[in-house]
Amino acid sequence: MKRLHKLGAWEAASLLASREITSEDLVRDCLAQIEAREPHIHAFVHLSPDTAIAQARQIDAGTRRGLLHGIPFGVKDLFDTADAPTGYGSPIYASYQPSADAAAVAHCRAAGGILLGKTVTTELANMQPTAYVASPNLVPAVASDAVVTTRNPHNFEHTPGGSSSGSAAAVASFMLPLSLGTQTAGSLIRPAAFCGVVGFKPSHNRIAKAGVKSLSETLDTLGGFARSVRDAALLGSVLTGDARIAHPSCFAEVDASQANLDKDLQGIRVGLCQTPEWNLADSDTQEAWALATQLLQNAKLQKLELPAAFSNLVAVQKDIQAYETARSLLPENRQVPCRLSAPLQALLAYGETISGQAHVANLLATHHARQQVQDLWRQVDVIFAPSTIGAAPYGLAHTGDPLFCRTWTLLGLPCIHLPFTKTADGLPMGLQLIGGYGQDHKLLAAAHTLHQQLLRQG
Amino acid sequence: MKRLHKLGAWEAASLLASREITSEDLVRDCLAQIEAREPHIHAFVHLSPDTAIAQARQIDAGTRRGLLHGIPFGVKDLFDTADAPTGYGSPIYASYQPSADAAAVAHCRAAGGILLGKTVTTELANMQPTAYVASPNLVPAVASDAVVTTRNPHNFEHTPGGSSSGSAAAVASFMLPLSLGTQTAGSLIRPAAFCGVVGFKPSHNRIAKAGVKSLSETLDTLGGFARSVRDAALLGSVLTGDARIAHPSCFAEVDASQANLDKDLQGIRVGLCQTPEWNLADSDTQEAWALATQLLQNAKLQKLELPAAFSNLVAVQKDIQAYETARSLLPENRQVPCRLSAPLQALLAYGETISGQAHVANLLATHHARQQVQDLWRQVDVIFAPSTIGAAPYGLAHTGDPLFCRTWTLLGLPCIHLPFTKTADGLPMGLQLIGGYGQDHKLLAAAHTLHQQLLRQG
Repeated sequence: MKRLHKLGAWEAASLLASREITSEDLVRDCLAQIEAREPHIHAFVHLSPDTAIAQARQIDAGTRRGLLHGIPFGVKDLFDTADAPTGYGSPIYASYQPSADAAAVAHCRAAGGILLGKTVTTELANMQPTAYVASPNLVPAVASDAVVTTRNPHNFEHTPGGSSSGSAAAVASFMLPLSLGTQTAGSLIRPAAFCGVVGFKPSHNRIAKAGVKSLSETLDTLGGFARSVRDAALLGSVLTGDARIAHPSCFAEVDASQANLDKDLQGIRVGLCQTPEWNLADSDTQEAWALATQLLQNAKLQKLELPAAFSNLVAVQKDIQAYETARSLLPENRQVPCRLSAPLQALLAYGETISGQAHVANLLATHHARQQVQDLWRQVDVIFAPSTIGAAPYGLAHTGDPLFCRTWTLLGLPCIHLPFTKTADGLPMGLQLIGGYGQDHKLLAAAHTLHQQLLRQG
Repeated sequence: MKRLHKLGAWEAASLLASREITSEDLVRDCLAQIEAREPHIHAFVHLSPDTAIAQARQIDAGTRRGLLHGIPFGVKDLFDTADAPTGYGSPIYASYQPSADAAAVAHCRAAGGILLGKTVTTELANMQPTAYVASPNLVPAVASDAVVTTRNPHNFEHTPGGSSSGSAAAVASFMLPLSLGTQTAGSLIRPAAFCGVVGFKPSHNRIAKAGVKSLSETLDTLGGFARSVRDAALLGSVLTGDARIAHPSCFAEVDASQANLDKDLQGIRVGLCQTPEWNLADSDTQEAWALATQLLQNAKLQKLELPAAFSNLVAVQKDIQAYETARSLLPENRQVPCRLSAPLQALLAYGETISGQAHVANLLATHHARQQVQDLWRQVDVIFAPSTIGAAPYGLAHTGDPLFCRTWTLLGLPCIHLPFTKTADGLPMGLQLIGGYGQDHKLLAAAHTLHQQLLRQG
């Protein structure tokens, strides 16, 4: 019998709806895949196999609940869960058990989704990988007290990226079809890029943040991972409550003829935006860019220059993140500074050097840039831009640089990473698409078409 | 010996700095006032007298920590506290003990403030007053199992307003010089108006929200209560990290001569904005308005018309609040709907009828209005507007209407309520001042001058 863990969420939802498969079998096959792969990947800090199987049986016995009916999902360990411990990637919260689910988790469950486990986050969703004692329940431990860090499924010596490390790695290694994460700088798009999956960061503040550890009011954005655009759309629709995002008419024709695909491509105005930081992109990113622009030549491509003032936005984003994170994490930094890593302490110390006056100037610059960017949508439907400097870097001590995500996060625009090629070393490469604020449904519809074309020839 | 509980925060800070008083005596006098008044007011759900006295002794023995050095403060029970239970005004969280302080609480403590107690919030900071079993530790209970609701210190038969009911009532009845609250519609300005204290709502997202129960990303704003503008400025400076907000040069001359005050007034361009809802203001608000415009005639007064599109913003604010609150409280509404009040259930049910598409349209309308409002600051320095429909309504079953606060909350602008007169029935009346985004320091400096004038003759 065919194992089901390789099914995408959209396909599984369809097979569940027609009762060709059961949620229990889907959950069991994902758990089997976790048992096989987790000892090498270390994507999870907690698994809920028994609860998940019991819930799957309930789902199989009941009527349809929503878009995620019977679909297993994972949740970054920055989201509170009422029935699983929540550690925020920090020893400070090692034994913390929240009393309620985060709103986003509750929305996935209300739509019929089945929480399979909590996935590894970096320390308090910052830059430092979390080393945790292997391994969660269910999985035979590598060694019962070995300290491990999440690995890239494509090459165990390379980082999966962060801070949503486990969520990206779990989806990439077919342990789960969907998972939740957050982005403050580049924590959805970067791990998606490094692990070769689709990462979707919706428009800022479209998803209720209740029950997610808060770092930066201005930047924190909830989102998720999937292996296709239409799977990401299912999740995005549930999280935002916008039915347009997963409207079947946008995603039906996965096997469209090249002629039909070309017709769709011709209707999409794509702004090619290398960004002011392009000189820092390495040869892998440059090659992926050249390949993509060639593959998408039937779309309406045009070079897009950002307003001159935008060249400063990376610096603005960095300082807003440092200032707000330092203020958000003051309770931990006052009470137990010794339990914060040295790099995180350094970030907080830097944040504390920024004056409230300078911070307001940064907020006003952000508001102004968010206004200015609205003009771009008269010229283009979506923006095509680099996701990362290059492929997943070697080593597990760092999670890579979010450079190419900072500006788009600051602008609050919806972004989606599209994987479509590999480096000579076999590491995934892709690029991101950016849409207008609140136009998540248009972004995903365009992304689906463009991704079909990139995958067909990439 | 003079009792110290009537001291404002600014004056107390000055006397503490010169060691003319001790923090321990200040805390003890506030506790004595609580013991006397709390059985009638019911402002607190929890008190920490022993911890507070111990901390005051440490403060007295140590070096100066910051702007709130040795000053007692109270915190709305919507903010997490590591050393006091946190109930969010809901039976769902009756026994909840957070593991860490909210960031705002940590900032007050880091500045030397002493947490004296948790103050009553309405149910999950919505419209329903919380009835709780009297009375917190320390205070002799009215009756050991009596169910009580916070009362207006000026007339026990009238509401103190909400949702920050206890924080406003505690400051109004001299139980505390400062307290923290939140506003999603009118939950700072309205109780400040009804209780006759200064209520300060800073610019949206200037204060870290970590550890405060989240209802609405777009609207939730942290702030606080005091009995003078300069006391509110002390608190605002600590909460935002902006040293300009409490700069002594803005507040030194409380006893300025009328000639000097008139000179200062002449430098302030005040936009008089009755708002499109003025026809709903009652005669008390109309009389306060007439009195204020007469008292402030030496300022540069001008009538200010809002852009026509703003007439719709009250409806936009209501729908954004309902949509986001329904999504934020889904965990509670899914798990224990029976423990939510009927009015809150009705609000959540209404929020669930709003589509994601309609919500995005509301967010875009908000962004547009936030842009448009920037033009107003070319004409005026501050806007003068009604705070409430009238004085505190009779009865404890409702907390009054936030109508006149909704637009300013939606716009994210800093607001401050200035009490300056009373109705024929002895209930407090005042009006609010509104400033430009991020210009909290300018708003408070102008508010201080205008309030001096209003109090001198009001």
